[in-house]
Amino acid sequence: MSAASLAHIAAGRARFAADLAAFVRFASVGADPRRRDDVAACAGWLAGRLRRAGLRDAALARTPGHPIVHASWRGAPGAPTVLFYGHYDVQPPEPLHAWRTPPFAPALAGEDLVGRGACDDKGPVLCHVAAIESHLATSGRLPANVVCVFEGEEEHGSPHLPAFLRAHRGRLAPDVAVMSDTRMRAPGWPAIIEGTRGAVSFEVELSRSGDELHAGQFGGAIANPLEALCAVLAQLHDERGRIAVPGLYDRVRVLPPREHARFAVDAPTDGELLRAGGSDDPAGEAGFSAYERTTVRPALTVTGLRGGYTGPGTQSAVPAGAQARLNLRLVPDQDPQEARRLVCARLRALTPAGLDLAVRAGPGSRATTIDRSHPAMLAAARALREAFGREPVFIRSGGSIPIVDVVQRLFGVPVVLMGFALPGDGMHAPNERVNLPTLHRGTAACARFLELVAAAGLPAEKELAA
Amino acid sequence: MSAASLAHIAAGRARFAADLAAFVRFASVGADPRRRDDVAACAGWLAGRLRRAGLRDAALARTPGHPIVHASWRGAPGAPTVLFYGHYDVQPPEPLHAWRTPPFAPALAGEDLVGRGACDDKGPVLCHVAAIESHLATSGRLPANVVCVFEGEEEHGSPHLPAFLRAHRGRLAPDVAVMSDTRMRAPGWPAIIEGTRGAVSFEVELSRSGDELHAGQFGGAIANPLEALCAVLAQLHDERGRIAVPGLYDRVRVLPPREHARFAVDAPTDGELLRAGGSDDPAGEAGFSAYERTTVRPALTVTGLRGGYTGPGTQSAVPAGAQARLNLRLVPDQDPQEARRLVCARLRALTPAGLDLAVRAGPGSRATTIDRSHPAMLAAARALREAFGREPVFIRSGGSIPIVDVVQRLFGVPVVLMGFALPGDGMHAPNERVNLPTLHRGTAACARFLELVAAAGLPAEKELAA
Repeated sequence: MSAASLAHIAAGRARFAADLAAFVRFASVGADPRRRDDVAACAGWLAGRLRRAGLRDAALARTPGHPIVHASWRGAPGAPTVLFYGHYDVQPPEPLHAWRTPPFAPALAGEDLVGRGACDDKGPVLCHVAAIESHLATSGRLPANVVCVFEGEEEHGSPHLPAFLRAHRGRLAPDVAVMSDTRMRAPGWPAIIEGTRGAVSFEVELSRSGDELHAGQFGGAIANPLEALCAVLAQLHDERGRIAVPGLYDRVRVLPPREHARFAVDAPTDGELLRAGGSDDPAGEAGFSAYERTTVRPALTVTGLRGGYTGPGTQSAVPAGAQARLNLRLVPDQDPQEARRLVCARLRALTPAGLDLAVRAGPGSRATTIDRSHPAMLAAARALREAFGREPVFIRSGGSIPIVDVVQRLFGVPVVLMGFALPGDGMHAPNERVNLPTLHRGTAACARFLELVAAAGLPAEKELAA
Repeated sequence: MSAASLAHIAAGRARFAADLAAFVRFASVGADPRRRDDVAACAGWLAGRLRRAGLRDAALARTPGHPIVHASWRGAPGAPTVLFYGHYDVQPPEPLHAWRTPPFAPALAGEDLVGRGACDDKGPVLCHVAAIESHLATSGRLPANVVCVFEGEEEHGSPHLPAFLRAHRGRLAPDVAVMSDTRMRAPGWPAIIEGTRGAVSFEVELSRSGDELHAGQFGGAIANPLEALCAVLAQLHDERGRIAVPGLYDRVRVLPPREHARFAVDAPTDGELLRAGGSDDPAGEAGFSAYERTTVRPALTVTGLRGGYTGPGTQSAVPAGAQARLNLRLVPDQDPQEARRLVCARLRALTPAGLDLAVRAGPGSRATTIDRSHPAMLAAARALREAFGREPVFIRSGGSIPIVDVVQRLFGVPVVLMGFALPGDGMHAPNERVNLPTLHRGTAACARFLELVAAAGLPAEKELAA
C-alpha cells in the first residue's frame, strides 16, 4: 500500500478520535421524531467532513424522512467504482439508567471511545472517509472511482434508501459495495461477513372494551389484556426453544454436516458468544450452537412489553390494554412477507375471544448470502490481512442489514462486509463503544482495498447483471 | 331528623360542590414521592375545613409518611362515640391519555364532578364533614360524640395508621366506626357492605446477567427475562380461570347454596357488573357469577408489566430484565402472610434456571366480615332508607379496606360501610367521578345516623371487647 497514504492515516489518529467524538455527540436517533433536528445537524456535519476529505460534491439528498449524505469521485476512468455505504443514524439510547456515561457525551475509556453509535455505525463511516482522504491528501487521486452513500434511517429499516438507489442507479453504477457496520471475529482477528439474517419487526396490541378498572371491584371477573398478552407470547416458543409459528420453518435450509463442521472451527464458540454479550445465561433452540442459533436459524425475540401501571407506588387496576414489540430474524430462503403473515396468523389464533388484536409490521428484509469467491471479496480478504496481520475468517452475521439485499439485487454486485466492531462493543446496547486502534487498522484496510480492487479486474457490471 | 340540620345540608349544596372541587384539585397521590408537597397541602386544607365545620381541635398528626388529619367533639357524655374514617390520598392518575379532562382539574359533567379522588374518597369524606357541620351549625351540638380520622396513605396500604390508632386507642375509644369509600348498589339504591376482600400487592422482577443485547447478534441464543416473565405469569391461572398457586384455595370457604341463592336476588348481576366496568369482556373462575368472582373468591390480577423498549421507533434488543406488578385479593379465612408465601414459592418454582427472581410484597390485609345484626348496622340501614327512600341492601365488596380489619380487631366495634359511589364512577380508573345529588343524600344519611345511633343503645365497648 502507498506508504504516504499509510503515513497519513497514522498521523491522523488524534484528529480521527476528535472527529468521531464530534460525530457521536449528535443524538441522531433516526426513529425518534423528537430528534429530527439532531439527525439533520448530524447529516450536515458529515457532508462537511466529506468535503474536507476532498469529495467536493458532497451534499444532502432530501427524502420524505432523513437526508441521505452522498459524495463521489470519478477521476479513474476504466477503473471499477466502489460504493461505500454506511449510516449516521443510531439506535435509541434507552435504557438510559444503564449507561455509565451519557450516551451522547462521548467518553474515552482506555483505547475505546464510548457513546451511542460509536461502533454502529459512526466509527466505521469515518474509516471510509479517512481512507479516501488518505489517498486524496497524499496523491491527489483515488485508485478507483468512489461513491459514498450514508443514510440516516438504517436503524428503522431504511425506508427511503431503496428509492434513492433506484433513482440514481445509472449514475451510481458501482462494481462493488463496501459496508463496515459488522463485527470482527475477535480483537485483532478480522472477519468478512458471508451473509446476514433478515428481519421483521412487529408491534402487537391487545385490548378489551372499557377503561382501566379497580382490581378489587373487578379483579377476577374482567378479561385482562395484559395477562392475555403474556399467555400469547408464552406460546410463541415450544419447550425445545423452537418458534411455535406453524409453517415458519418450512423454507429454512437444513444445515449440512460440513457447514456444521466448518462452524466448529471458524465460528465463535458458545462461550465466546456469551462473553461478548456479557451474559452467562444461554437459551435457544435445542441441537444448535449459539453461533448457529444466531446466524442460520430464525429467532423470535420479545423486545418490549408495556401494560398497566408500573410507576411509583401502587395502582391496583385491571389494565384495558397491553402492547408488545417482537423482532423476528430470518435466514436464507425465508420470505419476510410470508413470515409476517404466519406470525400474524399465529397471534390471531392465540388471541382469546372478546379481546381486540392489532398488529403493525414493517415490510421487513431478507437474509442474504454473499459470494465468497468474488474477486472483490478476495481483495477485501487481502486488504484485511495486510492491515491486521492475520487472515480474516468468513462468518455469517446474526444481524440484519436490509440494504445488502437491495444493493445485491439492484446492481448485481457483491457487498463486501468488512466491519471493525469487536464482540462486546455493545451495538444496540448501553455503553456502546468502539476500539480506536481497530478503527485505524480498519481505515488502512479500506484504503488498501481501493488499490487492490482497482487491480483485481472486476467483472463488468453488465456481465453480472445479465 | 332535625329539620334545621336537613335544611342546612340542602342550603349548602353549592358550597359542597365548591369545597369538593377545591379538595380534588390537590394532586394528593400518596404513593408518589414527587407529590409529597401536594399531599401535605391537601391535609392542611382538610384540617382547615374541619375547623370551619366547628371541630376546633382539628389538627395534623405527623407520621413517618403522610400526616393523619384528626378532630373530635366530646360534648355528649354517655352517648356513643362515632369514628368517622376516610382518606384524602388518591390513586395515581395514570394512564393520563385516557382522561377526557385533566385528573386534578375538577370538571362538572351534568350532575357529576369528575377528577381523581372525587369518589375515592374525597366526596365521601366531605359528606362526613358536612353532616357534622349541619348539626353544629344549627344546634351547636352533635347527637353523639365524634372523632374524625382521615389518613393520607390508604391507597398504598395505610402503613402508619394502625400505629396511630393503637397509640391513641384509649382516647379514640369509638363505639362504632363509619367509612364511606364503598359503592351503592345502583343509583338511588343504597348498600351497606357486609364484608371486604383482603389484598396483597407484589412487585416481581426477572433479570439475567449482562446488559441489553442486539437482537440480531444475540437473538435466539440468550435468555430473555421478558419472555420468561410472560411465561411465568401465563402459568398463574389454569384453564378454568382458577389461580394456579398450590395451597391458595385451602382456606377458602365453600359457598353455601343459600348464600348463592341470596346473591342471585340481592347482588349485582353479571350484566350490571360488566356495565359498571364499561366492558363487555367477562373472564374468571368457572362456576361462579361475576359478583361471586369479585367478592367471595380470591383473584390474582397482573396490574402492570414493563420490559425492554417500547418507545418511539424500534430498538431491537434482547432485554436484560422485566418487572411486573401483581395484585392478589383474598377472601375470609385466608391469611395474607401465608398467601404471600404461597405466591412467592410459586413464582420461584416457575422461574427458569439461570434467571434471577426478586419479589417485594407488602404485609397485605385480611378480608373482613361485618356483623349485619349489630344495632349500629340497623341504625345505618334506617338512616340510608330515610335519606334515599329505598331499603339498603347488604352486599360484599370486592375491594379492600385494610383498616376495617384493624378497627374491628383493635376496638372490638363494627365498621359501618355506607358508601356513596355509584357503579361506573370509575374508582381507580381514568375519568373518576362522583354524583353530587347522591353525596347530598349521603350527607343527610350520615347526619341522621348520628341521631339514630345515639338512640340505639349501643353495647358498651367493654362488653364487646370482652
